[in-house]
Amino acid sequence: MSRSSVESLASLSNRVIGIVGLGLIGGCLAIDLKRLGYAVYGVSRRSETVTAALDQGMVTDAGCDLALMAQADIVFVCTPMALIVPTVQALAAYLPQSAIVTDVGSVKGEIVSAATAMWPNFVGGHPMAGKAESGLGAAEIGLFHERPYVITPIGTTKPHAVDAVAEIATQLGSRLYKSTPTAHDRAVAAISHLPVMVSSCLLHACLSESDADVKTLAQHLASSGFCDTSRVGGGNPELGTMMAQFNRSALLQSLQQYRHQLDSVIELIEAEQWNALEQKLSIAQQERPKYL
Amino acid sequence: MSRSSVESLASLSNRVIGIVGLGLIGGCLAIDLKRLGYAVYGVSRRSETVTAALDQGMVTDAGCDLALMAQADIVFVCTPMALIVPTVQALAAYLPQSAIVTDVGSVKGEIVSAATAMWPNFVGGHPMAGKAESGLGAAEIGLFHERPYVITPIGTTKPHAVDAVAEIATQLGSRLYKSTPTAHDRAVAAISHLPVMVSSCLLHACLSESDADVKTLAQHLASSGFCDTSRVGGGNPELGTMMAQFNRSALLQSLQQYRHQLDSVIELIEAEQWNALEQKLSIAQQERPKYL
Repeated sequence: MSRSSVESLASLSNRVIGIVGLGLIGGCLAIDLKRLGYAVYGVSRRSETVTAALDQGMVTDAGCDLALMAQADIVFVCTPMALIVPTVQALAAYLPQSAIVTDVGSVKGEIVSAATAMWPNFVGGHPMAGKAESGLGAAEIGLFHERPYVITPIGTTKPHAVDAVAEIATQLGSRLYKSTPTAHDRAVAAISHLPVMVSSCLLHACLSESDADVKTLAQHLASSGFCDTSRVGGGNPELGTMMAQFNRSALLQSLQQYRHQLDSVIELIEAEQWNALEQKLSIAQQERPKYL
Repeated sequence: MSRSSVESLASLSNRVIGIVGLGLIGGCLAIDLKRLGYAVYGVSRRSETVTAALDQGMVTDAGCDLALMAQADIVFVCTPMALIVPTVQALAAYLPQSAIVTDVGSVKGEIVSAATAMWPNFVGGHPMAGKAESGLGAAEIGLFHERPYVITPIGTTKPHAVDAVAEIATQLGSRLYKSTPTAHDRAVAAISHLPVMVSSCLLHACLSESDADVKTLAQHLASSGFCDTSRVGGGNPELGTMMAQFNRSALLQSLQQYRHQLDSVIELIEAEQWNALEQKLSIAQQERPKYL
Protein backbone atom coordinates (compact mmCIF):
# COMPACT_ATOMS: atom_id res chain seq x y z
CA MET A 1 0.00 0.00 0.00
CA SER A 2 1.45 3.40 -0.99
CA ARG A 3 1.87 6.17 1.54
CA SER A 4 -0.89 8.25 -0.04
CA SER A 5 -3.30 5.29 0.22
CA VAL A 6 -2.43 4.85 3.87
CA GLU A 7 -2.94 8.56 4.52
CA SER A 8 -6.20 8.42 2.63
CA LEU A 9 -7.46 5.48 4.70
CA ALA A 10 -6.32 7.13 7.91
CA SER A 11 -8.20 10.30 7.06
CA LEU A 12 -11.27 8.28 6.08
CA SER A 13 -11.45 6.45 9.38
CA ASN A 14 -11.80 9.83 11.06
CA ARG A 15 -14.72 10.79 8.86
CA VAL A 16 -18.26 10.46 10.12
CA ILE A 17 -20.89 9.18 7.69
CA GLY A 18 -24.54 10.07 8.23
CA ILE A 19 -27.34 8.00 6.74
CA VAL A 20 -30.89 9.33 6.69
CA GLY A 21 -33.41 6.59 5.94
CA LEU A 22 -32.54 3.07 7.10
CA GLY A 23 -34.32 1.01 4.46
CA LEU A 24 -32.63 -1.54 2.18
CA ILE A 25 -30.17 0.90 0.57
CA GLY A 26 -29.47 2.92 3.72
CA GLY A 27 -29.03 -0.29 5.70
CA CYS A 28 -26.64 -1.83 3.16
CA LEU A 29 -24.58 1.38 3.04
CA ALA A 30 -24.40 1.42 6.85
CA ILE A 31 -23.21 -2.19 7.02
CA ASP A 32 -20.50 -1.78 4.37
CA LEU A 33 -19.26 1.64 5.50
CA LYS A 34 -19.03 0.60 9.15
CA ARG A 35 -16.99 -2.45 8.06
CA LEU A 36 -14.74 -0.09 6.09
CA GLY A 37 -13.91 1.69 9.37
CA TYR A 38 -16.16 4.75 9.21
CA ALA A 39 -18.18 6.01 12.14
CA VAL A 40 -21.75 5.63 10.82
CA TYR A 41 -24.66 7.59 12.29
CA GLY A 42 -28.15 6.61 11.20
CA VAL A 43 -31.50 8.40 11.32
CA SER A 44 -34.87 6.74 10.80
CA ARG A 45 -38.39 8.05 11.32
CA ARG A 46 -39.36 4.81 13.10
CA SER A 47 -37.86 4.08 16.53
CA GLU A 48 -38.18 0.28 15.88
CA THR A 49 -35.82 0.69 12.92
CA VAL A 50 -33.36 2.68 15.05
CA THR A 51 -33.41 -0.07 17.70
CA ALA A 52 -32.92 -2.81 15.08
CA ALA A 53 -29.97 -1.01 13.46
CA LEU A 54 -28.31 -0.51 16.86
CA ASP A 55 -29.04 -4.06 18.04
CA GLN A 56 -27.53 -5.55 14.88
CA GLY A 57 -24.44 -3.35 15.15
CA MET A 58 -25.07 -1.80 11.73
CA VAL A 59 -24.45 1.73 12.99
CA THR A 60 -22.19 3.51 15.47
CA ASP A 61 -25.14 5.51 16.73
CA ALA A 62 -28.71 6.08 15.57
CA GLY A 63 -31.85 8.03 16.42
CA CYS A 64 -35.03 9.59 15.08
CA ASP A 65 -33.77 13.17 15.17
CA LEU A 66 -31.98 14.82 12.21
CA ALA A 67 -29.92 16.79 14.77
CA LEU A 68 -27.75 13.66 15.03
CA MET A 69 -26.43 14.54 11.56
CA ALA A 70 -24.70 17.67 12.91
CA GLN A 71 -21.62 15.48 13.50
CA ALA A 72 -21.49 14.06 9.95
CA ASP A 73 -18.90 14.87 7.29
CA ILE A 74 -20.86 13.17 4.50
CA VAL A 75 -24.61 12.49 4.63
CA PHE A 76 -26.34 9.91 2.39
CA VAL A 77 -30.04 10.70 1.97
CA CYS A 78 -31.65 7.28 1.48
CA THR A 79 -35.32 8.18 1.90
CA PRO A 80 -38.05 7.42 -0.64
CA MET A 81 -37.70 9.66 -3.70
CA ALA A 82 -40.41 12.15 -2.78
CA LEU A 83 -38.69 12.90 0.53
CA ILE A 84 -35.14 13.50 -0.77
CA VAL A 85 -35.45 17.24 -1.43
CA PRO A 86 -37.49 17.96 1.76
CA THR A 87 -34.89 16.00 3.74
CA VAL A 88 -32.00 18.03 2.28
CA GLN A 89 -33.92 21.19 3.16
CA ALA A 90 -34.47 19.98 6.73
CA LEU A 91 -30.81 18.87 7.08
CA ALA A 92 -29.59 22.37 6.17
CA ALA A 93 -30.62 23.59 9.62
CA TYR A 94 -28.29 21.12 11.37
CA LEU A 95 -25.24 20.52 9.17
CA PRO A 96 -21.88 22.28 9.38
CA GLN A 97 -21.27 24.22 6.16
CA SER A 98 -18.46 21.86 5.13
CA ALA A 99 -20.71 18.76 5.17
CA ILE A 100 -21.23 16.98 1.86
CA VAL A 101 -24.72 15.69 1.12
CA THR A 102 -25.51 13.04 -1.48
CA ASP A 103 -28.57 10.94 -2.27
CA VAL A 104 -29.32 7.49 -3.72
CA GLY A 105 -32.46 8.30 -5.75
CA SER A 106 -32.96 6.45 -9.03
CA VAL A 107 -33.94 9.64 -10.89
CA LYS A 108 -31.64 12.65 -10.75
CA GLY A 109 -32.74 15.65 -12.86
CA GLU A 110 -35.08 17.61 -10.59
CA ILE A 111 -33.57 16.29 -7.36
CA VAL A 112 -30.03 17.45 -8.17
CA SER A 113 -31.02 21.00 -9.14
CA ALA A 114 -33.44 21.46 -6.20
CA ALA A 115 -31.09 19.91 -3.62
CA THR A 116 -28.06 21.85 -4.89
CA ALA A 117 -30.04 25.11 -4.55
CA MET A 118 -30.59 24.21 -0.88
CA TRP A 119 -27.13 22.82 -0.15
CA PRO A 120 -24.22 23.83 -2.41
CA ASN A 121 -22.16 20.83 -1.25
CA PHE A 122 -24.75 18.45 -2.70
CA VAL A 123 -23.79 15.70 -5.21
CA GLY A 124 -26.40 13.47 -6.84
CA GLY A 125 -25.70 9.73 -6.76
CA HIS A 126 -27.37 6.50 -7.80
CA PRO A 127 -26.00 3.18 -6.58
CA MET A 128 -27.78 0.74 -8.94
CA ALA A 129 -28.37 -2.22 -6.71
CA GLY A 130 -31.46 -3.75 -5.21
CA LYS A 131 -33.29 -6.87 -4.12
CA ALA A 132 -36.86 -8.10 -4.35
CA GLU A 133 -37.24 -7.51 -0.59
CA SER A 134 -37.19 -4.03 0.91
CA GLY A 135 -36.53 -2.58 4.35
CA LEU A 136 -33.67 -2.78 6.84
CA GLY A 137 -34.38 -6.48 7.45
CA ALA A 138 -33.26 -7.27 3.91
CA ALA A 139 -29.95 -5.37 4.23
CA GLU A 140 -26.81 -7.41 3.59
CA ILE A 141 -23.05 -7.07 3.13
CA GLY A 142 -21.69 -6.17 -0.31
CA LEU A 143 -24.91 -5.23 -2.16
CA PHE A 144 -23.05 -2.58 -4.19
CA HIS A 145 -20.06 -4.75 -5.05
CA GLU A 146 -19.47 -4.77 -8.84
CA ARG A 147 -22.72 -2.86 -9.40
CA PRO A 148 -22.84 0.54 -11.16
CA TYR A 149 -22.71 3.69 -9.02
CA VAL A 150 -23.54 6.81 -11.06
CA ILE A 151 -22.52 10.23 -9.78
CA THR A 152 -24.27 13.14 -11.49
CA PRO A 153 -22.51 16.48 -10.95
CA ILE A 154 -23.83 19.69 -12.52
CA GLY A 155 -21.95 22.88 -13.43
CA THR A 156 -22.01 24.25 -9.88
CA THR A 157 -21.14 21.00 -8.07
CA LYS A 158 -17.96 21.22 -5.96
CA PRO A 159 -15.18 18.96 -7.31
CA HIS A 160 -14.08 17.92 -3.79
CA ALA A 161 -17.64 16.78 -3.04
CA VAL A 162 -17.68 14.66 -6.23
CA ASP A 163 -14.30 13.16 -5.27
CA ALA A 164 -15.47 12.29 -1.76
CA VAL A 165 -18.55 10.41 -2.98
CA ALA A 166 -16.56 8.75 -5.81
CA GLU A 167 -13.98 7.54 -3.27
CA ILE A 168 -16.68 5.92 -1.13
CA ALA A 169 -18.34 4.31 -4.18
CA THR A 170 -14.97 2.85 -5.14
CA GLN A 171 -14.43 1.54 -1.60
CA LEU A 172 -17.84 -0.17 -1.83
CA GLY A 173 -16.48 -2.06 -4.85
CA SER A 174 -18.92 -0.37 -7.23
CA ARG A 175 -18.27 0.37 -10.92
CA LEU A 176 -18.14 4.18 -10.93
CA TYR A 177 -19.73 6.30 -13.69
CA LYS A 178 -20.08 10.06 -13.96
CA SER A 179 -22.81 11.60 -16.07
CA THR A 180 -25.09 14.62 -16.28
CA PRO A 181 -28.41 14.17 -14.45
CA THR A 182 -30.19 14.34 -17.82
CA ALA A 183 -28.08 11.64 -19.48
CA HIS A 184 -28.50 9.46 -16.37
CA ASP A 185 -32.28 9.85 -16.41
CA ARG A 186 -32.51 9.07 -20.13
CA ALA A 187 -30.28 6.01 -19.77
CA VAL A 188 -32.24 4.57 -16.83
CA ALA A 189 -35.51 5.38 -18.61
CA ALA A 190 -34.33 3.24 -21.53
CA ILE A 191 -32.91 0.27 -19.65
CA SER A 192 -34.91 0.22 -16.44
CA HIS A 193 -38.19 2.18 -16.60
CA LEU A 194 -39.14 1.40 -20.24
CA PRO A 195 -38.77 -2.39 -19.71
CA VAL A 196 -41.28 -2.21 -16.82
CA MET A 197 -43.93 -0.58 -19.05
CA VAL A 198 -43.15 -2.79 -22.09
CA SER A 199 -43.36 -5.91 -19.95
CA SER A 200 -46.53 -4.84 -18.15
CA CYS A 201 -48.23 -4.14 -21.50
CA LEU A 202 -47.40 -7.71 -22.56
CA LEU A 203 -49.35 -9.04 -19.58
CA HIS A 204 -52.25 -6.67 -20.32
CA ALA A 205 -52.32 -7.64 -24.00
CA CYS A 206 -52.78 -11.29 -22.94
CA LEU A 207 -55.30 -10.39 -20.23
CA SER A 208 -57.35 -8.38 -22.76
CA GLU A 209 -57.98 -11.53 -24.86
CA SER A 210 -61.78 -11.74 -25.20
CA ASP A 211 -61.96 -15.46 -26.07
CA ALA A 212 -61.92 -17.30 -22.72
CA ASP A 213 -60.62 -20.56 -24.27
CA VAL A 214 -57.68 -18.80 -25.93
CA LYS A 215 -56.91 -16.89 -22.71
CA THR A 216 -56.92 -20.06 -20.58
CA LEU A 217 -54.88 -22.04 -23.14
CA ALA A 218 -52.33 -19.20 -23.25
CA GLN A 219 -52.00 -19.38 -19.46
CA HIS A 220 -51.34 -23.13 -19.69
CA LEU A 221 -48.84 -22.84 -22.55
CA ALA A 222 -46.80 -19.85 -21.34
CA SER A 223 -43.24 -20.89 -20.57
CA SER A 224 -39.77 -19.46 -19.85
CA GLY A 225 -39.86 -16.89 -22.68
CA PHE A 226 -43.10 -15.38 -21.42
CA CYS A 227 -41.93 -15.67 -17.82
CA ASP A 228 -38.76 -13.67 -18.49
CA THR A 229 -40.36 -11.05 -20.75
CA SER A 230 -43.17 -10.39 -18.24
CA ARG A 231 -41.06 -10.45 -15.05
CA VAL A 232 -40.38 -6.76 -14.46
CA GLY A 233 -43.90 -5.83 -15.66
CA GLY A 234 -45.32 -7.97 -12.86
CA GLY A 235 -43.19 -6.28 -10.21
CA ASN A 236 -43.97 -3.75 -7.45
CA PRO A 237 -46.67 -1.36 -8.79
CA GLU A 238 -45.79 1.52 -6.43
CA LEU A 239 -42.19 1.40 -7.62
CA GLY A 240 -43.23 1.33 -11.30
CA THR A 241 -45.56 4.29 -10.77
CA MET A 242 -42.87 6.23 -8.95
CA MET A 243 -40.43 5.67 -11.82
CA ALA A 244 -42.99 7.11 -14.24
CA GLN A 245 -43.81 9.99 -11.92
CA PHE A 246 -40.23 11.08 -11.25
CA ASN A 247 -38.78 10.31 -14.66
CA ARG A 248 -41.89 11.24 -16.67
CA SER A 249 -40.30 13.22 -19.47
CA ALA A 250 -37.40 10.80 -20.18
CA LEU A 251 -39.72 7.80 -19.93
CA LEU A 252 -42.22 9.36 -22.36
CA GLN A 253 -39.34 9.95 -24.78
CA SER A 254 -38.31 6.28 -24.47
CA LEU A 255 -41.92 5.14 -24.89
CA GLN A 256 -42.22 7.18 -28.10
CA GLN A 257 -38.99 5.61 -29.43
CA TYR A 258 -40.40 2.21 -28.49
CA ARG A 259 -43.78 2.89 -30.12
CA HIS A 260 -42.01 3.88 -33.31
CA GLN A 261 -40.14 0.54 -33.31
CA LEU A 262 -43.35 -1.37 -32.62
CA ASP A 263 -45.14 0.37 -35.49
CA SER A 264 -42.27 -0.50 -37.79
CA VAL A 265 -42.45 -4.20 -36.84
CA ILE A 266 -46.23 -4.22 -37.36
CA GLU A 267 -45.76 -2.60 -40.78
CA LEU A 268 -43.12 -5.15 -41.82
CA ILE A 269 -45.38 -8.06 -40.85
CA GLU A 270 -48.44 -6.50 -42.49
CA ALA A 271 -46.45 -5.95 -45.69
CA GLU A 272 -44.89 -9.44 -45.44
CA GLN A 273 -41.41 -7.91 -45.67
CA TRP A 274 -39.78 -11.06 -44.29
CA ASN A 275 -36.20 -10.21 -45.25
CA ALA A 276 -36.45 -6.81 -43.60
CA LEU A 277 -37.98 -8.36 -40.47
CA GLU A 278 -35.23 -10.96 -40.28
CA GLN A 279 -32.63 -8.21 -40.69
CA LYS A 280 -34.23 -6.26 -37.83
CA LEU A 281 -34.24 -9.33 -35.57
CA SER A 282 -30.61 -10.02 -36.55
CA ILE A 283 -29.55 -6.55 -35.43
CA ALA A 284 -31.29 -7.11 -32.07
CA GLN A 285 -29.46 -10.44 -31.70
CA GLN A 286 -26.08 -8.92 -32.63
CA GLU A 287 -26.38 -5.81 -30.45
CA ARG A 288 -27.92 -7.34 -27.30
CA PRO A 289 -24.57 -8.51 -25.84
CA LYS A 290 -23.56 -4.82 -25.50
CA TYR A 291 -26.23 -4.47 -22.82
CA LEU A 292 -25.23 -7.56 -20.81
CA MET B 1 -50.61 -52.30 -13.48
CA SER B 2 -54.16 -53.12 -14.67
CA ARG B 3 -54.80 -55.76 -17.36
CA SER B 4 -55.89 -53.11 -19.89
CA SER B 5 -52.65 -51.16 -19.34
CA VAL B 6 -50.63 -54.32 -19.94
CA GLU B 7 -52.60 -55.06 -23.13
CA SER B 8 -52.18 -51.47 -24.22
CA LEU B 9 -48.39 -51.59 -23.69
CA ALA B 10 -48.21 -54.95 -25.46
CA SER B 11 -50.05 -53.59 -28.47
CA LEU B 12 -47.87 -50.48 -28.46
CA SER B 13 -44.64 -52.37 -28.56
CA ASN B 14 -45.80 -53.88 -31.83
CA ARG B 15 -46.41 -50.46 -33.33
CA VAL B 16 -43.86 -48.90 -35.63
CA ILE B 17 -43.20 -45.18 -35.28
CA GLY B 18 -41.84 -43.22 -38.22
CA ILE B 19 -40.00 -39.94 -37.78
CA VAL B 20 -39.32 -37.69 -40.78
CA GLY B 21 -36.76 -35.04 -39.95
CA LEU B 22 -34.07 -35.90 -37.39
CA GLY B 23 -33.41 -32.47 -35.90
CA LEU B 24 -33.76 -31.59 -32.22
CA ILE B 25 -37.46 -32.47 -31.91
CA GLY B 26 -37.35 -35.53 -34.18
CA GLY B 27 -34.22 -36.77 -32.42
CA CYS B 28 -35.72 -36.31 -28.94
CA LEU B 29 -38.90 -38.13 -30.01
CA ALA B 30 -36.81 -41.00 -31.41
CA ILE B 31 -34.80 -41.37 -28.20
CA ASP B 32 -37.84 -41.36 -25.89
CA LEU B 33 -40.07 -43.55 -28.07
CA LYS B 34 -37.37 -46.18 -28.61
CA ARG B 35 -36.85 -46.29 -24.83
CA LEU B 36 -40.62 -46.78 -24.45
CA GLY B 37 -40.30 -49.97 -26.52
CA TYR B 38 -41.44 -48.80 -29.95
CA ALA B 39 -39.69 -49.72 -33.17
CA VAL B 40 -38.58 -46.29 -34.44
CA TYR B 41 -37.74 -45.67 -38.12
CA GLY B 42 -36.13 -42.36 -39.01
CA VAL B 43 -35.75 -40.46 -42.26
CA SER B 44 -33.40 -37.55 -42.81
CA ARG B 45 -32.38 -35.74 -45.98
CA ARG B 46 -28.73 -35.83 -44.92
CA SER B 47 -26.93 -39.18 -44.86
CA GLU B 48 -24.59 -37.95 -42.08
CA THR B 49 -27.64 -37.48 -39.84
CA VAL B 50 -28.87 -40.99 -40.68
CA THR B 51 -25.47 -42.44 -39.76
CA ALA B 52 -25.32 -40.45 -36.51
CA ALA B 53 -28.83 -41.58 -35.46
CA LEU B 54 -27.96 -45.22 -36.17
CA ASP B 55 -24.53 -45.03 -34.50
CA GLN B 56 -26.02 -43.55 -31.35
CA GLY B 57 -28.77 -46.17 -31.22
CA MET B 58 -31.49 -43.52 -31.37
CA VAL B 59 -33.45 -45.41 -34.06
CA THR B 60 -34.25 -49.01 -34.99
CA ASP B 61 -33.56 -48.21 -38.64
CA ALA B 62 -32.99 -45.06 -40.65
CA GLY B 63 -32.41 -43.83 -44.18
CA CYS B 64 -32.78 -40.95 -46.60
CA ASP B 65 -35.75 -42.42 -48.47
CA LEU B 66 -39.37 -41.76 -47.48
CA ALA B 67 -40.19 -45.31 -48.72
CA LEU B 68 -38.89 -46.47 -45.31
CA MET B 69 -42.09 -45.03 -43.82
CA ALA B 70 -44.22 -47.68 -45.61
CA GLN B 71 -43.82 -49.83 -42.48
CA ALA B 72 -44.94 -47.14 -40.00
CA ASP B 73 -48.20 -47.11 -38.06
CA ILE B 74 -47.75 -43.51 -36.87
CA VAL B 75 -45.52 -40.97 -38.61
CA PHE B 76 -44.27 -37.79 -36.89
CA VAL B 77 -43.36 -35.09 -39.42
CA CYS B 78 -40.59 -33.11 -37.70
CA THR B 79 -39.29 -31.06 -40.63
CA PRO B 80 -38.99 -27.27 -40.67
CA MET B 81 -42.42 -25.65 -40.87
CA ALA B 82 -42.36 -24.84 -44.61
CA LEU B 83 -41.74 -28.52 -45.42
CA ILE B 84 -44.51 -30.09 -43.30
CA VAL B 85 -47.29 -29.98 -45.91
CA PRO B 86 -45.03 -31.00 -48.85
CA THR B 87 -43.73 -33.89 -46.71
CA VAL B 88 -47.27 -35.11 -45.94
CA GLN B 89 -48.02 -34.93 -49.64
CA ALA B 90 -44.91 -36.94 -50.49
CA LEU B 91 -45.61 -39.50 -47.73
CA ALA B 92 -49.08 -40.23 -49.16
CA ALA B 93 -47.44 -42.21 -51.97
CA TYR B 94 -45.84 -44.66 -49.53
CA LEU B 95 -48.06 -45.04 -46.49
CA PRO B 96 -50.68 -47.76 -45.88
CA GLN B 97 -54.14 -46.15 -45.66
CA SER B 98 -54.40 -46.95 -41.95
CA ALA B 99 -51.26 -44.99 -41.05
CA ILE B 100 -51.70 -41.99 -38.80
CA VAL B 101 -49.67 -38.86 -39.61
CA THR B 102 -49.01 -36.05 -37.15
CA ASP B 103 -46.64 -33.08 -37.08
CA VAL B 104 -44.77 -31.01 -34.49
CA GLY B 105 -45.08 -27.55 -36.08
CA SER B 106 -45.46 -24.56 -33.78
CA VAL B 107 -48.28 -23.04 -35.90
CA LYS B 108 -51.29 -25.18 -36.79
CA GLY B 109 -54.04 -23.36 -38.75
CA GLU B 110 -53.01 -23.71 -42.38
CA ILE B 111 -50.92 -26.84 -41.83
CA VAL B 112 -53.79 -28.86 -40.31
CA SER B 113 -56.32 -28.04 -43.04
CA ALA B 114 -53.84 -28.57 -45.91
CA ALA B 115 -52.36 -31.78 -44.45
CA THR B 116 -55.80 -33.23 -43.61
CA ALA B 117 -56.91 -32.63 -47.19
CA MET B 118 -53.94 -34.78 -48.32
CA TRP B 119 -54.13 -37.42 -45.60
CA PRO B 120 -57.46 -37.92 -43.76
CA ASN B 121 -55.68 -39.70 -40.87
CA PHE B 122 -53.73 -36.53 -40.09
CA VAL B 123 -53.74 -34.95 -36.62
CA GLY B 124 -51.99 -31.66 -35.88
CA GLY B 125 -49.73 -31.63 -32.83
CA HIS B 126 -47.36 -29.25 -31.07
CA PRO B 127 -45.03 -30.53 -28.37
CA MET B 128 -43.92 -27.26 -26.74
CA ALA B 129 -40.35 -27.99 -25.82
CA GLY B 130 -37.04 -26.73 -27.08
CA LYS B 131 -33.47 -25.78 -26.32
CA ALA B 132 -31.15 -23.00 -27.38
CA GLU B 133 -29.22 -25.56 -29.49
CA SER B 134 -30.74 -27.20 -32.55
CA GLY B 135 -30.06 -30.35 -34.56
CA LEU B 136 -29.76 -34.04 -33.73
CA GLY B 137 -26.57 -33.43 -31.73
CA ALA B 138 -28.60 -31.51 -29.13
CA ALA B 139 -31.20 -34.29 -28.72
CA GLU B 140 -31.62 -35.65 -25.20
CA ILE B 141 -33.81 -37.92 -23.09
CA GLY B 142 -37.04 -36.53 -21.63
CA LEU B 143 -37.26 -33.17 -23.43
CA PHE B 144 -41.08 -33.38 -23.47
CA HIS B 145 -41.47 -34.44 -19.84
CA GLU B 146 -43.92 -32.12 -18.01
CA ARG B 147 -44.05 -29.82 -21.05
CA PRO B 148 -47.32 -28.98 -22.85
CA TYR B 149 -48.29 -31.09 -25.89
CA VAL B 150 -51.19 -29.53 -27.79
CA ILE B 151 -53.25 -31.68 -30.18
CA THR B 152 -55.40 -29.71 -32.61
CA PRO B 153 -58.18 -31.80 -34.18
CA ILE B 154 -60.64 -30.27 -36.65
CA GLY B 155 -64.20 -31.40 -37.50
CA THR B 156 -63.06 -34.15 -39.87
CA THR B 157 -60.19 -35.51 -37.75
CA LYS B 158 -60.58 -39.24 -36.91
CA PRO B 159 -61.08 -39.79 -33.15
CA HIS B 160 -58.84 -42.93 -33.14
CA ALA B 161 -56.03 -40.87 -34.67
CA VAL B 162 -56.41 -38.22 -31.94
CA ASP B 163 -56.36 -40.97 -29.29
CA ALA B 164 -53.22 -42.57 -30.71
CA VAL B 165 -51.24 -39.30 -30.66
CA ALA B 166 -52.67 -38.39 -27.23
CA GLU B 167 -51.53 -41.76 -25.85
CA ILE B 168 -47.98 -41.21 -27.08
CA ALA B 169 -47.90 -37.65 -25.71
CA THR B 170 -48.99 -39.02 -22.32
CA GLN B 171 -46.29 -41.70 -22.47
CA LEU B 172 -43.72 -38.98 -23.10
CA GLY B 173 -44.81 -37.44 -19.80
CA SER B 174 -46.21 -34.33 -21.48
CA ARG B 175 -49.14 -32.24 -20.21
CA LEU B 176 -51.79 -32.90 -22.86
CA TYR B 177 -54.09 -30.15 -24.22
CA LYS B 178 -56.66 -30.29 -27.02
CA SER B 179 -57.67 -27.17 -28.87
CA THR B 180 -58.80 -25.93 -32.27
CA PRO B 181 -55.91 -24.93 -34.57
CA THR B 182 -57.17 -21.32 -34.43
CA ALA B 183 -57.25 -21.14 -30.61
CA HIS B 184 -53.78 -22.76 -30.52
CA ASP B 185 -52.36 -20.23 -32.94
CA ARG B 186 -53.86 -17.27 -31.07
CA ALA B 187 -52.58 -18.60 -27.72
CA VAL B 188 -49.02 -19.14 -28.98
CA ALA B 189 -49.10 -15.76 -30.75
CA ALA B 190 -49.86 -14.14 -27.38
CA ILE B 191 -47.41 -15.99 -25.15
CA SER B 192 -44.62 -16.96 -27.53
CA HIS B 193 -44.55 -14.92 -30.76
CA LEU B 194 -45.67 -11.54 -29.34
CA PRO B 195 -42.97 -11.59 -26.61
CA VAL B 196 -40.28 -11.99 -29.31
CA MET B 197 -41.46 -8.84 -31.14
CA VAL B 198 -42.06 -6.85 -27.92
CA SER B 199 -38.62 -7.77 -26.63
CA SER B 200 -36.86 -7.08 -29.92
CA CYS B 201 -38.48 -3.62 -30.08
CA LEU B 202 -37.05 -2.87 -26.62
CA LEU B 203 -33.54 -3.49 -27.96
CA HIS B 204 -34.24 -1.36 -31.04
CA ALA B 205 -35.69 1.49 -28.93
CA CYS B 206 -32.39 1.59 -26.99
CA LEU B 207 -30.30 1.22 -30.15
CA SER B 208 -32.17 4.12 -31.78
CA GLU B 209 -30.96 6.53 -29.07
CA SER B 210 -29.28 9.38 -30.97
CA ASP B 211 -27.16 10.70 -28.06
CA ALA B 212 -24.02 8.55 -28.02
CA ASP B 213 -23.29 9.28 -24.34
CA VAL B 214 -26.76 8.21 -23.27
CA LYS B 215 -26.56 5.07 -25.43
CA THR B 216 -23.21 4.03 -23.99
CA LEU B 217 -24.25 4.79 -20.40
CA ALA B 218 -27.42 2.72 -20.94
CA GLN B 219 -25.26 -0.21 -22.10
CA HIS B 220 -23.14 0.06 -18.93
CA LEU B 221 -26.13 0.39 -16.58
CA ALA B 222 -28.40 -2.33 -18.03
CA SER B 223 -28.88 -5.14 -15.54
CA SER B 224 -31.02 -8.21 -14.86
CA GLY B 225 -34.35 -6.52 -15.65
CA PHE B 226 -33.17 -5.46 -19.09
CA CYS B 227 -31.44 -8.78 -19.62
CA ASP B 228 -34.62 -10.76 -18.97
CA THR B 229 -36.97 -8.45 -20.89
CA SER B 230 -34.69 -8.45 -23.96
CA ARG B 231 -33.77 -12.17 -23.95
CA VAL B 232 -36.26 -13.60 -26.46
CA GLY B 233 -35.97 -10.49 -28.65
CA GLY B 234 -32.27 -11.22 -29.04
CA GLY B 235 -32.87 -14.83 -30.09
CA ASN B 236 -32.63 -16.66 -33.42
CA PRO B 237 -33.78 -14.22 -36.16
CA GLU B 238 -34.79 -16.96 -38.64
CA LEU B 239 -37.05 -18.54 -36.02
CA GLY B 240 -38.63 -15.18 -35.14
CA THR B 241 -39.26 -14.42 -38.79
CA MET B 242 -40.77 -17.86 -39.36
CA MET B 243 -43.15 -17.35 -36.43
CA ALA B 244 -44.35 -14.09 -38.00
CA GLN B 245 -44.59 -15.64 -41.45
CA PHE B 246 -46.57 -18.72 -40.43
CA ASN B 247 -48.69 -17.12 -37.70
CA ARG B 248 -49.04 -13.73 -39.37
CA SER B 249 -52.72 -13.08 -38.77
CA ALA B 250 -52.82 -14.18 -35.10
CA LEU B 251 -49.57 -12.32 -34.38
CA LEU B 252 -50.89 -9.12 -35.99
CA GLN B 253 -54.00 -9.43 -33.81
CA SER B 254 -51.80 -9.79 -30.70
CA LEU B 255 -49.61 -6.87 -31.80
CA GLN B 256 -52.70 -4.66 -32.17
CA GLN B 257 -53.88 -5.65 -28.68
CA TYR B 258 -50.39 -4.86 -27.42
CA ARG B 259 -50.24 -1.50 -29.19
CA HIS B 260 -53.56 -0.56 -27.63
CA GLN B 261 -52.15 -1.32 -24.17
CA LEU B 262 -48.99 0.65 -24.91
CA ASP B 263 -51.01 3.67 -26.06
CA SER B 264 -53.05 3.50 -22.88
CA VAL B 265 -49.90 3.50 -20.71
CA ILE B 266 -48.46 6.45 -22.67
CA GLU B 267 -51.74 8.35 -22.22
CA LEU B 268 -51.81 7.69 -18.46
CA ILE B 269 -48.24 8.95 -18.06
CA GLU B 270 -48.86 11.99 -20.28
CA ALA B 271 -51.98 12.85 -18.27
CA GLU B 272 -50.17 12.14 -14.97
CA GLN B 273 -52.94 9.72 -13.97
CA TRP B 274 -50.75 8.08 -11.33
CA ASN B 275 -53.52 6.22 -9.50
CA ALA B 276 -54.77 4.69 -12.73
CA LEU B 277 -51.21 3.72 -13.74
CA GLU B 278 -50.59 2.10 -10.36
CA GLN B 279 -53.89 0.19 -10.68
CA LYS B 280 -52.83 -1.06 -14.11
CA LEU B 281 -49.44 -2.20 -12.79
CA SER B 282 -51.20 -3.86 -9.83
CA ILE B 283 -53.41 -5.92 -12.17
CA ALA B 284 -50.30 -7.06 -14.07
CA GLN B 285 -48.67 -8.07 -10.78
CA GLN B 286 -51.77 -9.94 -9.56
CA GLU B 287 -52.49 -11.77 -12.83
CA ARG B 288 -48.95 -12.75 -13.84
CA PRO B 289 -48.84 -15.90 -11.65
CA LYS B 290 -51.61 -17.39 -13.85
CA TYR B 291 -49.07 -17.53 -16.69
CA LEU B 292 -46.28 -19.19 -14.69
